[in-house]
Amino acid sequence: MALIVQKYGGTSVGSTERIKNVAKRIAKFQRQGHQVVVVVSAMSGETNRLIALTKEIQEQPDPREYDVVISTGEQVTIGLLAMALQDININAKSYTGGQVKILTDNTFTKARIISIEENNIRRDLNDGKVVIVAGFQGVDKDGNITTLGRGGSDTSAVALAAALKADECQIYTDVDGVYTTDPRIVPEAKKLDTITFEEMLEMASQGSKVLQIRAVEFAGKYKVKLRVLSSLDEKDAIASSGNNSGTLITIEEDKQKMEHAIISGIAFNRDEAKLTLTGVPDKPGIAFQILNAISQSNVDVDMIIQNVGRDGTTDFSFTVNRGEFEKALSILERVKLQLGAREILSDNKICKISAVGVGMRSHPGVATKLFQTLSDENINVKMISTSEIKISVVIDEKYLELAVRVLHKAFGLDK
Amino acid sequence: MALIVQKYGGTSVGSTERIKNVAKRIAKFQRQGHQVVVVVSAMSGETNRLIALTKEIQEQPDPREYDVVISTGEQVTIGLLAMALQDININAKSYTGGQVKILTDNTFTKARIISIEENNIRRDLNDGKVVIVAGFQGVDKDGNITTLGRGGSDTSAVALAAALKADECQIYTDVDGVYTTDPRIVPEAKKLDTITFEEMLEMASQGSKVLQIRAVEFAGKYKVKLRVLSSLDEKDAIASSGNNSGTLITIEEDKQKMEHAIISGIAFNRDEAKLTLTGVPDKPGIAFQILNAISQSNVDVDMIIQNVGRDGTTDFSFTVNRGEFEKALSILERVKLQLGAREILSDNKICKISAVGVGMRSHPGVATKLFQTLSDENINVKMISTSEIKISVVIDEKYLELAVRVLHKAFGLDK
Repeated sequence: MALIVQKYGGTSVGSTERIKNVAKRIAKFQRQGHQVVVVVSAMSGETNRLIALTKEIQEQPDPREYDVVISTGEQVTIGLLAMALQDININAKSYTGGQVKILTDNTFTKARIISIEENNIRRDLNDGKVVIVAGFQGVDKDGNITTLGRGGSDTSAVALAAALKADECQIYTDVDGVYTTDPRIVPEAKKLDTITFEEMLEMASQGSKVLQIRAVEFAGKYKVKLRVLSSLDEKDAIASSGNNSGTLITIEEDKQKMEHAIISGIAFNRDEAKLTLTGVPDKPGIAFQILNAISQSNVDVDMIIQNVGRDGTTDFSFTVNRGEFEKALSILERVKLQLGAREILSDNKICKISAVGVGMRSHPGVATKLFQTLSDENINVKMISTSEIKISVVIDEKYLELAVRVLHKAFGLDK
Repeated sequence: MALIVQKYGGTSVGSTERIKNVAKRIAKFQRQGHQVVVVVSAMSGETNRLIALTKEIQEQPDPREYDVVISTGEQVTIGLLAMALQDININAKSYTGGQVKILTDNTFTKARIISIEENNIRRDLNDGKVVIVAGFQGVDKDGNITTLGRGGSDTSAVALAAALKADECQIYTDVDGVYTTDPRIVPEAKKLDTITFEEMLEMASQGSKVLQIRAVEFAGKYKVKLRVLSSLDEKDAIASSGNNSGTLITIEEDKQKMEHAIISGIAFNRDEAKLTLTGVPDKPGIAFQILNAISQSNVDVDMIIQNVGRDGTTDFSFTVNRGEFEKALSILERVKLQLGAREILSDNKICKISAVGVGMRSHPGVATKLFQTLSDENINVKMISTSEIKISVVIDEKYLELAVRVLHKAFGLDK
């Protein structure tokens, strides 16, 4: 008997018919003798409907009240799923984030989980109930409703799995695992049976939108066995049965026992924008002064690049999500004046492409091959950033598909 | 400076545009120096949408989970209204029933309020905030979400007004007050400036759907000054200003100072069904045995009539809401066998009409006039029930409009 946390995303619970199917799947697990905790998202479309309502009221919705409104999406799903289970004679009970309680800080719309009370859930599981928890939400210490930001349901699931010391955390999505790259762009893309946490982190942060990056971080930190699999697939994957459905996200040692390619996948992010502040005085504290202003406005910065300076000044570049481009730009105008920098260069028609793989550590020449492949196609590289297991380049957005395809082939991922 | 509780129904907050208008109205009160607590319903249509979802999942939805789903409607409205107020620079904060907390029993879908914690609301009011509370909902002692049943937002408002010792509780609806009868049926119907709690109770329970009966009971019990008025009306009514907008529901002494008619209004209820169990052994405890079985299934019984017995047996009749007719009928089949009663007579094409007025106490002849009026129109009376300030008759549904019109005229309510 295992304790399994399952997470179903918005598409999997997108209609009452689909909710009933999810209930059947859960019932199968429970009847096998497993204890099941289920985390659900809002029905697909619902969160967008709610966000639209808030925007009709206020251009920049008040964050506390925004969370009050947005969190109702998941609350509807938990109630409906509990009913669907009871309708097929499975004892089930729903919990909002506050009822669990999933304690978070009070950064409304982007809260972080501090702790999870497990006693009530444990009691219900021991009573033979399926426990259903609203993903994406929690409460702060004053009882205010908070949300974890988009995709936060994955984080809820992993955090619950960690708190309950679950045997496996299964993330059900509309894809059947993590691929070497997006199959919509490269039809030859292959499903990976395993991927390391580190690789998954790089893949996720690069825009392979299978799992939320914070969820993967959390899973890595607390050694939660994480599996991505399809809610449409009829085969049921349980770790203990040795079944290899979906993609298992493992710690690196496990992975190294297996054969693996140097590069695990090609990730990309379409919605990027880059900003450069030129002629910045080259002295200590400059990076902090720029980034602090940006992050205080809750704009997430992705790549950060600063090259060696000349003539006592340097150029400082970073990328942000395209949706936050205008906001970042206006902050940078202020910073420019404060620092006496020369000018701001910006481009919001860019994308980022990354080659990711732990094999990179022991195999030199990956970067060379990457640049050569892009050069052969006459694709100009605008920014470069590397980590131990990843090389990322910023290029013109129009070359995205082409670059992904040629890199996928060059690194033999279609084999 | 007064403390005012205002309640806005589903139509008043039926769109983001209307929510903004409600915000403007609230702002006006607050800028006059009043402390304002606002109770809101779900946006019109939303509760029905949620109910439909639950029915798609389960024919008889699990009550606990039903409340989890249904209560989200009000939660969306409180967040949106708080945003709308902040957008016009009014400091506002929303509260779910659980956040207040409005403690109820655990009769899901029909919970009753036990107590209300007022400290947080009081603190926010003193900080100059408008406090917005989700109507219709609370939590039980175990933290489960409960709802108060349809129309429960009125009850939430009055209970809050009582707990906070508010100067006035204003119920905003799409009508501008309580009328002598439904103006859609009798165009000459007149708005009442005042009505007593008792009369209002009889009017409400008889189907004048302006206010929920429990709200009026509550208001009477805790001496809450209650005013019904239109959210579309531009005149703002405040008790302290002596303004006579809407209809003020008063205790009887106040009313007796004023001129008033013998009959205040003609109420009616279209959706009734009647059931009769004939040949019931005429012995103590019979009424209890019948009604207990019915009420344990949460079917609300309205009129109850038992006439003197003959030959050691009696006939026992009652009316229920038409939506619960089938349910009541099947329970009664069981009771019939248990009691060895003769047969069940039933009719679900009936309606109930009532003449209501405290003047009835001191003016004999009201009943006579009522029966004569109906008789003149050849309308057969099927059941009769009277209280100190009300006479109700059950008649064929098809005569409803006719009966209301002739009675309205006979009692001079169009004058």
